[in-house]
Amino acid sequence: MGDKPIWEQIGSSFVQHYYQLFDTDRTHLGAIYIDASCLTWEGQQFQGKAAIVEKLSSLPFQKIQHSITAQDHQPTPDSCILSMVVGQLKADDDQVLGFHQTFLLKNFQGAWVCTNEIFRLALHNV
Amino acid sequence: MGDKPIWEQIGSSFVQHYYQLFDTDRTHLGAIYIDASCLTWEGQQFQGKAAIVEKLSSLPFQKIQHSITAQDHQPTPDSCILSMVVGQLKADDDQVLGFHQTFLLKNFQGAWVCTNEIFRLALHNV
Repeated sequence: MGDKPIWEQIGSSFVQHYYQLFDTDRTHLGAIYIDASCLTWEGQQFQGKAAIVEKLSSLPFQKIQHSITAQDHQPTPDSCILSMVVGQLKADDDQVLGFHQTFLLKNFQGAWVCTNEIFRLALHNV
Repeated sequence: MGDKPIWEQIGSSFVQHYYQLFDTDRTHLGAIYIDASCLTWEGQQFQGKAAIVEKLSSLPFQKIQHSITAQDHQPTPDSCILSMVVGQLKADDDQVLGFHQTFLLKNFQGAWVCTNEIFRLALHNV
């Protein structure tokens, strides 16, 4: 880790934390959002910590497991970190599906929070 | 278009412009970048208008055609626009491949430019 730029360390730590929380108890994801945060989930838009956590918590599966194929991180001119994740997920006993997810992270009152998140299943490959 | 939020209009206009340029003559893409722009292409990092255009121009195919499956746009707290595109591309006579691409757009001296771009082929679905 020590040789990687700081924005790559922060981005990959965030990604690891996000999917670990998502796969164990996604009702606990609230701490990573602020009230200005935006989520677009399969084209549906949500804004604010409460609306985002409600959406993620109410997704219609009991168990989910993500595996990450690739993750890329970049610093932005506004001192944010942009991350794109490509991976596969398995929800309950469904078939494995590809997904793509983008995060924009911002330092807010000393902590890194997710201000923007976009998720899409890779359905065109089915 | 008139009913859509301004950030969605700007994001989708940018996406249309980008792929139209890319598919006709990608050596002309320089105008959308600034010297602070970052590109990550299949994990390789490039910074600055010149390095980015050189990378895109030297990609090893003559013809390419993108088709967009889904695009999502969001406003960010720093007045930028975050866009994620999912689609398919056909380069020369190769098979059709899925791809994912993320853009961060910023208003710079009155024009919208791309400060951050990340591209990945959907190779794990092959």
